[in-house]
Amino acid sequence: MSIVFMILATLLVWVMTPGIAVFYGGFVPQNNITRILFDSFLMFGIAGLMWVLVGYSASFEGNHFGIIGNFNHLFLSGVNMTALFGTTKLPTSIVVLFQMMFAILTPALFIGAIANRTRIKFVIGFIVLWSLLIYYPLVHMVWSSNGFLAQMGVLDFAGGTVIHIDAGITALVLSNFLLKPYKPAKQPSGNSFWILMGTGLLWIGWYGFNAGSAMALNTQAIQAFLTTTVAPLSAMLTWIALENTYKKKITLSGICTGTICGLVGVTPAAGYVTLTSAFIIGIISAMGSFYFMNNLKYKFHLNDYLDIFGSHGVSGIIGSLATGLFATKTVNPNVINNGLLTGGGIKLLLIKIIGVLFTVIVVITLNCLIVSGLKKLMKDDVYSPEIGELDPIKLT
Amino acid sequence: MSIVFMILATLLVWVMTPGIAVFYGGFVPQNNITRILFDSFLMFGIAGLMWVLVGYSASFEGNHFGIIGNFNHLFLSGVNMTALFGTTKLPTSIVVLFQMMFAILTPALFIGAIANRTRIKFVIGFIVLWSLLIYYPLVHMVWSSNGFLAQMGVLDFAGGTVIHIDAGITALVLSNFLLKPYKPAKQPSGNSFWILMGTGLLWIGWYGFNAGSAMALNTQAIQAFLTTTVAPLSAMLTWIALENTYKKKITLSGICTGTICGLVGVTPAAGYVTLTSAFIIGIISAMGSFYFMNNLKYKFHLNDYLDIFGSHGVSGIIGSLATGLFATKTVNPNVINNGLLTGGGIKLLLIKIIGVLFTVIVVITLNCLIVSGLKKLMKDDVYSPEIGELDPIKLT
Amino acid sequence: MSIVFMILATLLVWVMTPGIAVFYGGFVPQNNITRILFDSFLMFGIAGLMWVLVGYSASFEGNHFGIIGNFNHLFLSGVNMTALFGTTKLPTSIVVLFQMMFAILTPALFIGAIANRTRIKFVIGFIVLWSLLIYYPLVHMVWSSNGFLAQMGVLDFAGGTVIHIDAGITALVLSNFLLKPYKPAKQPSGNSFWILMGTGLLWIGWYGFNAGSAMALNTQAIQAFLTTTVAPLSAMLTWIALENTYKKKITLSGICTGTICGLVGVTPAAGYVTLTSAFIIGIISAMGSFYFMNNLKYKFHLNDYLDIFGSHGVSGIIGSLATGLFATKTVNPNVINNGLLTGGGIKLLLIKIIGVLFTVIVVITLNCLIVSGLKKLMKDDVYSPEIGELDPIKLT
Repeated sequence: MSIVFMILATLLVWVMTPGIAVFYGGFVPQNNITRILFDSFLMFGIAGLMWVLVGYSASFEGNHFGIIGNFNHLFLSGVNMTALFGTTKLPTSIVVLFQMMFAILTPALFIGAIANRTRIKFVIGFIVLWSLLIYYPLVHMVWSSNGFLAQMGVLDFAGGTVIHIDAGITALVLSNFLLKPYKPAKQPSGNSFWILMGTGLLWIGWYGFNAGSAMALNTQAIQAFLTTTVAPLSAMLTWIALENTYKKKITLSGICTGTICGLVGVTPAAGYVTLTSAFIIGIISAMGSFYFMNNLKYKFHLNDYLDIFGSHGVSGIIGSLATGLFATKTVNPNVINNGLLTGGGIKLLLIKIIGVLFTVIVVITLNCLIVSGLKKLMKDDVYSPEIGELDPIKLT
Repeated sequence: MSIVFMILATLLVWVMTPGIAVFYGGFVPQNNITRILFDSFLMFGIAGLMWVLVGYSASFEGNHFGIIGNFNHLFLSGVNMTALFGTTKLPTSIVVLFQMMFAILTPALFIGAIANRTRIKFVIGFIVLWSLLIYYPLVHMVWSSNGFLAQMGVLDFAGGTVIHIDAGITALVLSNFLLKPYKPAKQPSGNSFWILMGTGLLWIGWYGFNAGSAMALNTQAIQAFLTTTVAPLSAMLTWIALENTYKKKITLSGICTGTICGLVGVTPAAGYVTLTSAFIIGIISAMGSFYFMNNLKYKFHLNDYLDIFGSHGVSGIIGSLATGLFATKTVNPNVINNGLLTGGGIKLLLIKIIGVLFTVIVVITLNCLIVSGLKKLMKDDVYSPEIGELDPIKLT
Repeated sequence: MSIVFMILATLLVWVMTPGIAVFYGGFVPQNNITRILFDSFLMFGIAGLMWVLVGYSASFEGNHFGIIGNFNHLFLSGVNMTALFGTTKLPTSIVVLFQMMFAILTPALFIGAIANRTRIKFVIGFIVLWSLLIYYPLVHMVWSSNGFLAQMGVLDFAGGTVIHIDAGITALVLSNFLLKPYKPAKQPSGNSFWILMGTGLLWIGWYGFNAGSAMALNTQAIQAFLTTTVAPLSAMLTWIALENTYKKKITLSGICTGTICGLVGVTPAAGYVTLTSAFIIGIISAMGSFYFMNNLKYKFHLNDYLDIFGSHGVSGIIGSLATGLFATKTVNPNVINNGLLTGGGIKLLLIKIIGVLFTVIVVITLNCLIVSGLKKLMKDDVYSPEIGELDPIKLT
């Protein structure tokens, strides 16, 4: 039964990559639409190939210092695909596929930050290096049983740190510090249909993302299904209240953004918390992201195109810390220490803070390394000739 | 196995709410598009929150006079989510989720009738009261084992009365008697792509809607899957024949509307009738709805914006009565009396007529009550300032 | 478990028909969009009705000369829907539904080639005859255990010959030899969003198409899931490389077309080959289709509107022959002779060549017969009055 469930979950996560393409496509000016759809869809090719070629092996096979796996199973050679994976009751093939969808989606989450102004060859090079140096190690550290963060007890149900903080911080540093700031062309933009469809595709995909992360059709998976319904719902309503209070108008893009923040926020907590906690996480995620997008972003003169950091980064951090507040054994026996507000003391929260800080530092440092390396390699020829004239797409 | 099946069904019904947003969005003038998408999507927030907060308890927990449940389980507190639900083999959590999607979808079906000209605060107030006074009681009466209509033997497989007649009549009375008639702005409208996508999303969601209503992966569920394929198919072809005969042209919006009518018509009968009966139900649903939309509507000067009553109301009534004609024990042992044409005499048909009349009267009466209450409360400030200038969306 | 899996697979194949409508809709000039969406969606009605009425019986019940079934089960009468189907563990009802989606999709694949310029009544007549004379016999011959190609050992995992070569050749002969060549109106065309959405819907549907063709949730189904991920991925990257080399620019429609070619190519091989073989099949399918679309098509002055033959025909033939090269018992015990490159000698490749040639000849011959018959019957009144002015859609 768990196998069908995981196939369904895999398909749902698959859907999120076209979903994010459409979502971002609904926000960008018309002359960037094709490029953003292209780059998002391209992640299937680049990150998908990388995963089969080396990613699975580097993430889940073997172990070096709790940081990275091995490189012995290039192109999945020698992986026993029908053997059960770890302590799960799933054949390894299913885990390879399920995790592949995450490896494709995560870069698709932040690619919008650079798609509009860098050359395709830079995008390809960046994704290859980012996968190798940042993504696979993070997966190994958090989700492999040998990973050092896993062993430290960093609970990350469905990818708060590995996926959302990672993607959000990557978008932030690329946009602000590593690449030239982006000035979008003054063109008509905004397509309410795309934004709604994108949000719909992301939300339904998120059910696979969060519930599937239980790796079995068990009570935790169903709990994740419930929390993944309740958190975006409270976040949506919170966003409406905030927009109505501070902006005196409500927008479709607003409730969609609010929904996404709720989904991001509940991700690390999905299978660890009660419904009421999920409801609260939805509210505080929306509040934090709203505050960043409408205040802090301007205060600190940050460039956060498409609000990728504002939603995935901020709500990802809030959700990760909230897991340290709300996680409880009564929902999930894998929780060894309850959270601060569920009677377990400060320990889990501290672990979560360390996990978040560690992720932020690692992601920033390595992105600096990758971009400066690529700039040298490409002799600074990383930008598309004229920002705002990106059609047709060129590799060179 | 049934659990995965019900998760799939729940996700499919989930899809119908964005589906109906897109479907209606394909018909409205451009300056209403954002508002109709907004209001449909908002149902997740309002009706979803209401369901968790009070709806499930009022619908399925306890019993008062066979009319309504209790209010003891606010925010699902004290509900044993892992216990099996009723006579099913499903954990209660799955039923909470599956039914939640219906509680979100049903108002989304009729919200298009008022989204374009009432204030958001009226919409929110209306949905809250409509859920409490109309929807939860109907669910309790028809689907709770303690409900008095259920005990009377009103067979409603997947929501002919509770959902479609309910939504259709609500749209009709709101549009014609309780609110000012709507005169859409003369703007270009109609987007064939949206209409097709919306129909596609609704149809595939309907598989979850109808097959999932068996509450298990059993013979009835598969039968519902088959009938949910055959009825829209015959309805589609019937609509083409009718358009070609009476209008001398065939339209994409026509075959999509026909398809929806077939789906609505088969809903109350889905797991109770043979394939041939489903085929006939598709034909008569399309004929009835076509006749209403192209003749009766004008004859009686009815305002039926987006043909919500014409499709959901008319085909819902036809399908409910047809269940009294075609239901048969050979398909489903839960049928105690066969229908009129399947050798069971007139009894089931009479029960169905009573059920339909009861629903119509209750829905009309309570909608009058709700709207007049809201008008008093809002001091008649229920309309958006200028019809046709609804962007940006404002709460006040 | 296999039943839920097959229901999921059926729903996924269902999705492909709206998917192909949207995909082709993204390429055609604006005045043809409604018509192409209409005709694609109409296939549910026509081909769906035909399947229930006669198709299932003619394809899978009884046997005449290994070529066609019987006509005893009109409207599925007398079919025991709950009995297990053949050697599978599935109730017959599920197989009826799953195969119905193929019977609807296959004509939808090629209908784009004629939708834009023939009368609706020609389209309806053609689909009826094509289903009876070409599709059901091919299904019987290849997929019924009594079919003579099946008994010859023609391995066709998910429909390389029956579906893709069939659809591709039908499109080619209709466009070039049997109907007047089509000259599309010079109107703006091309919608990147539709092309991406269409590709997304097709790809996710293809998982049901290929994995579901295992008719059970077994190792072969999961292998098909993996190969259906890897082949489009390598085809996508190959297409980018080819476009960059030969056209000096990369396009969104290009990577989407490449993806489709990879999916078509791996279809006949999906459950028979290793991951590495699937990777190679993706590359050679993309290369073959790219070469045809950019060179051979012009060299031989072929009309291949929407590149239906270029993608489905060419990649279908390449994939079918590749099955003769790469099929292996280690992946699937149903492979009796390994392929040429997997140590089984030339036998399987020869069988595949015979199977492809046979399919091509049969499809060409019978299409000639059908079109000339219809032309006589319709007194040559097969074309819409003015090419390029097809809205509104008329039956006569």
